[in-house]
Amino acid sequence: MSKQRVLTGITTTGTPHLGNYVGAIRPAIEASRDTNNESFYFLADFHALIKCQDPAAVHQSTKEIAATWLALGLDTDNAVFYRQSDIPEIPELTWVLNCVCAKGLMNRAHAYKAAVDANVEEGEDADKAITMGLFSYPVLMAADILMFGSNKVPVGKDQIQHVEMARDMAQRFNHIYCKKEPLLTLPDYQVDEDSAILQGLDGRKMSKSYGNTIPLFLPEKKLQKHINKIKTNLLEPGEPKDPDTSAVFQIWKAFATQEQTAEMRRAFEEGIGWGDAKKKLFALINEEIAEARERYEDLLARPADIEAELQKGAEKARAVSKPMLAQVREAIGISGLK
Amino acid sequence: MSKQRVLTGITTTGTPHLGNYVGAIRPAIEASRDTNNESFYFLADFHALIKCQDPAAVHQSTKEIAATWLALGLDTDNAVFYRQSDIPEIPELTWVLNCVCAKGLMNRAHAYKAAVDANVEEGEDADKAITMGLFSYPVLMAADILMFGSNKVPVGKDQIQHVEMARDMAQRFNHIYCKKEPLLTLPDYQVDEDSAILQGLDGRKMSKSYGNTIPLFLPEKKLQKHINKIKTNLLEPGEPKDPDTSAVFQIWKAFATQEQTAEMRRAFEEGIGWGDAKKKLFALINEEIAEARERYEDLLARPADIEAELQKGAEKARAVSKPMLAQVREAIGISGLK
Repeated sequence: MSKQRVLTGITTTGTPHLGNYVGAIRPAIEASRDTNNESFYFLADFHALIKCQDPAAVHQSTKEIAATWLALGLDTDNAVFYRQSDIPEIPELTWVLNCVCAKGLMNRAHAYKAAVDANVEEGEDADKAITMGLFSYPVLMAADILMFGSNKVPVGKDQIQHVEMARDMAQRFNHIYCKKEPLLTLPDYQVDEDSAILQGLDGRKMSKSYGNTIPLFLPEKKLQKHINKIKTNLLEPGEPKDPDTSAVFQIWKAFATQEQTAEMRRAFEEGIGWGDAKKKLFALINEEIAEARERYEDLLARPADIEAELQKGAEKARAVSKPMLAQVREAIGISGLK
Repeated sequence: MSKQRVLTGITTTGTPHLGNYVGAIRPAIEASRDTNNESFYFLADFHALIKCQDPAAVHQSTKEIAATWLALGLDTDNAVFYRQSDIPEIPELTWVLNCVCAKGLMNRAHAYKAAVDANVEEGEDADKAITMGLFSYPVLMAADILMFGSNKVPVGKDQIQHVEMARDMAQRFNHIYCKKEPLLTLPDYQVDEDSAILQGLDGRKMSKSYGNTIPLFLPEKKLQKHINKIKTNLLEPGEPKDPDTSAVFQIWKAFATQEQTAEMRRAFEEGIGWGDAKKKLFALINEEIAEARERYEDLLARPADIEAELQKGAEKARAVSKPMLAQVREAIGISGLK
């Protein structure tokens, strides 16, 4: 049986935090070593342009995210790690898909509809401040997916619709242009129900939009400080504490072995002080990420080396995308004259 | 003063007819020799995909249109003649422009609104059978224009809006990303009020959609036959005829010198027979196009040579589009890491 192609996109806005690490980066990096799959990981900088019109921020985020994934040991020999904007075949395929994609499909996209609802609620024009980038990005995403013949796309629940839309466009394309044999692979989504959601400083989901994150690669002292800011209650040392309502314990679980988790549960019941618990939490997290953080700092100081990794990835990606686009062009009638 | 950049797109659907020749091709070919301008002519095959999902037809039309323009003497040394889909920078710029283009702008595009109106009139869903290609093609057109820093875009009246939209996107881009100096050139449209509209076989405007065309490079005998089919009235030879309501005379004018036009006007008044008039018309047209037709037939038999001309054009075009896109990428923050 041939290998499964698995595709994962990473939008290049912001700085990775512990929530990203636990929920997405760590499992993806593990998967990058799975030789049963051909895994494609890409920095989605064309998507970033929709959300962020600050060029320095997009550039910095791309650098930090690439350095993060490399520092954490992404296997770039087994997997393909590339920057979306290094693959000119992707925007070309996007245009081709535009021509087989019903506008009605985009009208029903969740992100667009949410933006429209918000406008209408405020008595504004339905499309106020909505760009064509926001409206049409499911087509770009379909091109990302279909370009590489991806079979599986791991997504959060809010992204299932995008994979379904990509399927729809692939089917339309195959129906119109591929009478003999379908050219585009119909992708399936893969929702990891267990994917860990980490609590933030205030106990809500750790998220940039709540301002409650702990950046992944803070210097040690700052990491300790951030951890000290995790919200706790007023129980004194010696008083038993409920682990299941504690963000400290929940974050602990995400980094600990089962044994360590059981130990900490006991410590909570036996009344460990918040200060102690946080010290232990810092030590646990720091142990897991300290080496990677050194590599990260080192890489950030050598952007040309990050760039070289991305170029290596682009070369591997284009070894797939170029022949695929050539077949697409042949199918639709825009190849060289003969 | 630096040269004006003039851009003209040619959609690759259908076979050129006399109406295209007189109204668009002949004046454009003349303009291609104007050394005061840098003229860009492109085969808009990405646009063709919106209208035509028959790959063989798109391919054949591209070949015929390229051969037509070359056979008629397009000056490909002075002008740049290329196929849109050979310039990967164009779909890339299209995506970038998507991200600065308000969706509301596209809602107001004439072609889209006409399609919606037609649907609503028939009691259908407003967006029925409308693709994202049709909805978003003004963005592609803006990329076509802005990619080459075009100052002037000769258009029919129905296309003015597209140039205005390209201006709008260029302004938005410059405003967001170019604090020091605007990068994208704001284009102006140029409407040729005198542009000749030729009558077809039935006296209405010659147009593929009316099925009343005379293809430009028909073999002589077929050309004669088509001309014989031009609608006339029942007046006999010897009876005076009104030149100003006659399609024969109107087509004559489009090919004749002033002197020849005056002669034919007299001949009409003196009662020239329709058969005679059509014979003369055939001779006049045939004289103008016979040599080009030979070159056309010859070129069609050598598609590799047409392809070579297009590749030469693509190279010249990319000498402009590559550095332009590099500047765009730098401005928006998606260039190489440093």
